[in-house]
Amino acid sequence: MTPAPLAPGATIGIIGGGQLGRMLAMAAARLGYRTIILEPDIHAPAAQVANSQIVADYDDPAALAQLADFCEVVTYEFENVPVAAVQWLESHVPVRPGSRALEVAQDRLLEKTMARELGAETALFAAVSSRSDLDKAIVTTGLPAVLKTTRLGYDGKGQAKLVRPEDADAAFAAMQDQMAVLESFVHFECEVSVIAARGLSGEVRAFDVAQNVHRDHILHTSTVPSTLGADARAEAVRIASAIAGHLDYVGVFAVEFFAVRDGKRHRLLVNEIAPRVHNSGHWTEAACAISQFEQHIRAIAGLPLGGTERHSDCVMENLIGADIDRVPDLATESDTVLHLYGKSEARPGRKMGHFTRISPRTEQF
Amino acid sequence: MTPAPLAPGATIGIIGGGQLGRMLAMAAARLGYRTIILEPDIHAPAAQVANSQIVADYDDPAALAQLADFCEVVTYEFENVPVAAVQWLESHVPVRPGSRALEVAQDRLLEKTMARELGAETALFAAVSSRSDLDKAIVTTGLPAVLKTTRLGYDGKGQAKLVRPEDADAAFAAMQDQMAVLESFVHFECEVSVIAARGLSGEVRAFDVAQNVHRDHILHTSTVPSTLGADARAEAVRIASAIAGHLDYVGVFAVEFFAVRDGKRHRLLVNEIAPRVHNSGHWTEAACAISQFEQHIRAIAGLPLGGTERHSDCVMENLIGADIDRVPDLATESDTVLHLYGKSEARPGRKMGHFTRISPRTEQF
Repeated sequence: MTPAPLAPGATIGIIGGGQLGRMLAMAAARLGYRTIILEPDIHAPAAQVANSQIVADYDDPAALAQLADFCEVVTYEFENVPVAAVQWLESHVPVRPGSRALEVAQDRLLEKTMARELGAETALFAAVSSRSDLDKAIVTTGLPAVLKTTRLGYDGKGQAKLVRPEDADAAFAAMQDQMAVLESFVHFECEVSVIAARGLSGEVRAFDVAQNVHRDHILHTSTVPSTLGADARAEAVRIASAIAGHLDYVGVFAVEFFAVRDGKRHRLLVNEIAPRVHNSGHWTEAACAISQFEQHIRAIAGLPLGGTERHSDCVMENLIGADIDRVPDLATESDTVLHLYGKSEARPGRKMGHFTRISPRTEQF
Repeated sequence: MTPAPLAPGATIGIIGGGQLGRMLAMAAARLGYRTIILEPDIHAPAAQVANSQIVADYDDPAALAQLADFCEVVTYEFENVPVAAVQWLESHVPVRPGSRALEVAQDRLLEKTMARELGAETALFAAVSSRSDLDKAIVTTGLPAVLKTTRLGYDGKGQAKLVRPEDADAAFAAMQDQMAVLESFVHFECEVSVIAARGLSGEVRAFDVAQNVHRDHILHTSTVPSTLGADARAEAVRIASAIAGHLDYVGVFAVEFFAVRDGKRHRLLVNEIAPRVHNSGHWTEAACAISQFEQHIRAIAGLPLGGTERHSDCVMENLIGADIDRVPDLATESDTVLHLYGKSEARPGRKMGHFTRISPRTEQF
């Protein structure tokens, strides 16, 4: 039996106060829900649009107790929330998605192992906890390869590339004694992602696959439709569904893939799983009736999932740091949807907003 | 010289805390602006999503002084704001739209007289300030006719219908000694409205004309495209532009028309002008890249106006009172965009939310 959906006026707790929390809070408001943000920074983007904020660390016991008291359901907007905090919350209030997804997403080894077990391809990989492990790992993956800390990687932090065996010392040192995983370098044609949601009923719905371009390890653009064929798109959704089912996941999540050319088709290798709304899904707000943010709120509120059809083709582009100065020009474009995050200081590398250029659909499928 | 647009992070004041203010605050947030709501009700829908609220009456001098201090620009979300309050504010901070539009919109006589002077048709009308005026007015308008207070009319309040001369006593009494205007009853084929914006530069952009159905004097549905021909739609936009230019208006406004069948065409009679975003423009959020709410924020912030193209056909329907119970069913519809207002109590006649069913465009123009 699926529980009844949250009634309008119910309160949703969101752990984390960044732009993803901000967009979730706005989507919750459009569905008549109230939101409380747990976030230590009083200037956080999400707090500006939420009903209230608990100003405390993500694992502050008194704050977590308040969140459990005030909220009918709790979610999180980033995957580096302490697992223990979510586990404690789970014993007091529904947390969607739960701690299991968080554990897997926080550990690249668990993540890749799970993907393989579910029949998905990944890059070749091997665990590295010592300098001698690294030499053995190179035999498994070949070179070039990328050494990554298993935990807390984000936007290219905690990564080192190995081209020749003599790069091993510097790469290992860069891990600063953290557990790491060596991954073979994938000669991909493009990077794609699928944003999907799994509802309380177990139903899974996916948005169209987006094709992503990164710059300096930060997402630069997402384009929909992608250049993938129908088979590869279906495979991306199949993998996403398997992952969500395996984790008994509730909410929106992203699976990022490397797409490797294989004759006329593409093979997909799982790169990362994000247990949350995702930058490569921001285009859904401009090109779909229901955005990834509303879809997440629907899922965790126990509402039916929304339709995922696109009404438009689109290209989403991030505004990083000083890109914010492009806003006046972008505002002159008729078919450009702007979305800024209310951050006062435009530091280099900081995501300040994004925009999505939409155009009539060129393709029906 | 048009002033520079408000920088991201600037603060916009909104007088009034209802659902229109709420949707404006969310649109402002998406453009990176902060909002302060002036509203006496601490449970007001807009305050839930704004950065902060000044809890005071709309004409509280200390509150107005705070608003002028904290905000780079001030706007209002309903037309019954005291004109004197806006006039005071105007001498301290840009108020967009200004007090002139408010004065006209608060007085049906000024409104209709202006429309006529700008070359638009209206119903026949005559001012009524005494019982004997009413008899003379009936000669001007004929019967049936509708007697309306000149001020503070909204959703059918302060109106009385006259079918026969002997209805005059009761109708006059219903005005409770307020200034009134008698309007000839228009045998319209349909009601339509145009939502347009005028920017700081004087540019006017209009969304497609919507066809509106009222129930119990409250908007029930808005459908786009309307059944009007291209000529009548162009005429609606021409009239809206003339009104906005005449008032040196800045922001979004609505002009409601009666459409009267005239052979194969429609004649348009101006019914009401609303100096604000309007219920019959809520569909723009679901069917256009840029909603009426964002368009208003762009206009008052001095940004370029956004494109007004529709990507979809649509029907918007209001959720009034107990209609809120339809939400779980509506949430199962793939192409339905829900928008609820965060009101806790579903009183009869109270606007609780709306939904918009979208479908691919059937018509290009």
